[in-house]
Amino acid sequence: MTAALELLELSGERFSATYRILGRAEAARAVAEEICVEQTVEFPRELISRGDIREGIIGRVDSVSEFDDRWCEVVVSFVAEVAGGELTQLLNALFGNTSLKTGVRLIDFELPDEMLSRIRGPRFGSRGVRELLGAFGRPLLCSALKPMGLSPRELADLAYGLASGGIDLVKDDHGLADQVFCPFEERVALCAAAVTRANRETGSRTLYLPNVTAPADRLVERALFAKASGAGGLLVAPGLVGFDAVRALADDDRVGLPILSHPALIGSFSVRADDGIGHGALYGLFARLTGADATIFPSYGGRFAFTEADCRDVIEKCRAPFGALAPILPVPAGGMSLERVPRLRAFYGDDAIFLIGGDLHRGPGTLVDNCRRFRALVSAG
Amino acid sequence: MTAALELLELSGERFSATYRILGRAEAARAVAEEICVEQTVEFPRELISRGDIREGIIGRVDSVSEFDDRWCEVVVSFVAEVAGGELTQLLNALFGNTSLKTGVRLIDFELPDEMLSRIRGPRFGSRGVRELLGAFGRPLLCSALKPMGLSPRELADLAYGLASGGIDLVKDDHGLADQVFCPFEERVALCAAAVTRANRETGSRTLYLPNVTAPADRLVERALFAKASGAGGLLVAPGLVGFDAVRALADDDRVGLPILSHPALIGSFSVRADDGIGHGALYGLFARLTGADATIFPSYGGRFAFTEADCRDVIEKCRAPFGALAPILPVPAGGMSLERVPRLRAFYGDDAIFLIGGDLHRGPGTLVDNCRRFRALVSAG
Repeated sequence: MTAALELLELSGERFSATYRILGRAEAARAVAEEICVEQTVEFPRELISRGDIREGIIGRVDSVSEFDDRWCEVVVSFVAEVAGGELTQLLNALFGNTSLKTGVRLIDFELPDEMLSRIRGPRFGSRGVRELLGAFGRPLLCSALKPMGLSPRELADLAYGLASGGIDLVKDDHGLADQVFCPFEERVALCAAAVTRANRETGSRTLYLPNVTAPADRLVERALFAKASGAGGLLVAPGLVGFDAVRALADDDRVGLPILSHPALIGSFSVRADDGIGHGALYGLFARLTGADATIFPSYGGRFAFTEADCRDVIEKCRAPFGALAPILPVPAGGMSLERVPRLRAFYGDDAIFLIGGDLHRGPGTLVDNCRRFRALVSAG
Repeated sequence: MTAALELLELSGERFSATYRILGRAEAARAVAEEICVEQTVEFPRELISRGDIREGIIGRVDSVSEFDDRWCEVVVSFVAEVAGGELTQLLNALFGNTSLKTGVRLIDFELPDEMLSRIRGPRFGSRGVRELLGAFGRPLLCSALKPMGLSPRELADLAYGLASGGIDLVKDDHGLADQVFCPFEERVALCAAAVTRANRETGSRTLYLPNVTAPADRLVERALFAKASGAGGLLVAPGLVGFDAVRALADDDRVGLPILSHPALIGSFSVRADDGIGHGALYGLFARLTGADATIFPSYGGRFAFTEADCRDVIEKCRAPFGALAPILPVPAGGMSLERVPRLRAFYGDDAIFLIGGDLHRGPGTLVDNCRRFRALVSAG
């Protein structure tokens, strides 16, 4: 290796990651030491002659504590400069190569103020979304335009019905992209107009959120088209477009609309408790780093395998202090029904968005009747 | 629901996905039927009054076969229009919401010619990379510039040594982004110049591949800077920038350089056999869809948990017929050593790139000596 000519000058500021590692303390510490190397120099420690790199760049195990019989909770910290001021490299430093290992799960992380101050985060957050809607002190309501296969005009009729019935956020189903049977621009123009018409008639302020999950070179273009058409927010799936693409969208002052994050494709990170990324870190903290204002995830008791503890983790990390990054709205979804709303409200509290899709289309009532019932269920204090 | 006014006109072309589903045939078929709905209409089947949507848009279970005592292999097909001609929506249709389930793993998929013909895929592929290098009939050699913490000048010295020693592809370590201790532009300019100098001296054609994994709004800019500086290829991690961002980079005629795909952050998709995405589908087929020309993954026997079968799956799907999409080079990596090269060569064959990082820096030989030994190990037929 080349002789040390230029010593590193490092700030001493550190960010830290909490991992759950399978095994008792001694084994977990050994894995943690591997993470310190794997996530930084990725080079045999004994072959690094320079002390400033060994001490400054390689991560540091700050604590190892036995969590239960199977697991340890381990805190590893890294010098802020490793993340290089970019979300892409921050995610890489937190879990890049370690994602290829089994028995290690990223469950939390903390960033120093110096790093947090350079992240814009949610432009609206929970409070900002409520201000746009003029809706306070109750859960917000969301529904999706579906099923896929309907024409833009048919979806616009649904959007009108949902908005008329008092749904706060009417979003595209996340599978609506730019299919020939439902072209993006036609759909967005018609649905935005339908929601605007309903708002004019009812005096409410429902937002329409088209799905702008799109090829990398069209994402911002679609968002700008949506805004120009009168859309009030955007739906986007970071697993499909990339976490940093959502961040760039949220940071773009030409767009400036609330962002609802969809979990498509990233489920594999969270579904197995032994590896991957914890629910709160993934759907809560990552979402806030990308600048999402609300984050969809499958609620316990629906058609996915999330537990109450998983959902509580998401709620907590949507709301926890995180520098100046605004708290965001958790959006439990995935097979929710009207009859479960009171129990969900007891669990999630009032600072959440409840997303019900198919169940609003179930008779005997009309769609608008069912929306009104949904609204009544969250309005009664 | 709105009355059916506009009947769907669909091509009848279908793409299909193969899932491994935990359980015996009857249970697996029930899960497959859920996937058909979940990945398309995401709406209760019984509430869809329109036959054209029920028959045309909802997926179809083509086959269910018991694979062993635990698993079934199930083929589900979808009409081509569902994917809307976009990689983002294709990935969503293959595994979007299903990623949130346990006990279902996407292991393969097939696209009809009509869809494949609209995907450019790898610009170079295995053959194109070999033509750039003028290297045929042997495995190619790759190494990484590291450890993180070295200055651009020190990394350039290493690049010179690696190129002089006969390494075909000299890449940035994937954790090198734009850190203050190693700014992107300075590093790329110096390393590209060092490799050019070595090539001039030795007459070989080593390529330098800087890491352009970067914020969404800087990725193409960095790639163009790299090209202008004389870089011969690019390293990028789809898990950090998004699969479609790699696709857009590969499709960009202003760039036109070979792309090496890095698995950072996407490991969680593949590491557990019970869910997620199979190794071959993820590191092979997805990589080809994004236009990568070579795909890094951890080899069996290294410091990650991949098995021989996992690696064989990657090799097969790098090389399998896939419309007009070129075969690409598998790049086994992750704790490889010189002494394992003969066995790796027997396993991976000659149409692969062997990536050795740290072990080339191990004494008693110099870095250049070790590179020459590496080269000799693959040259001896």
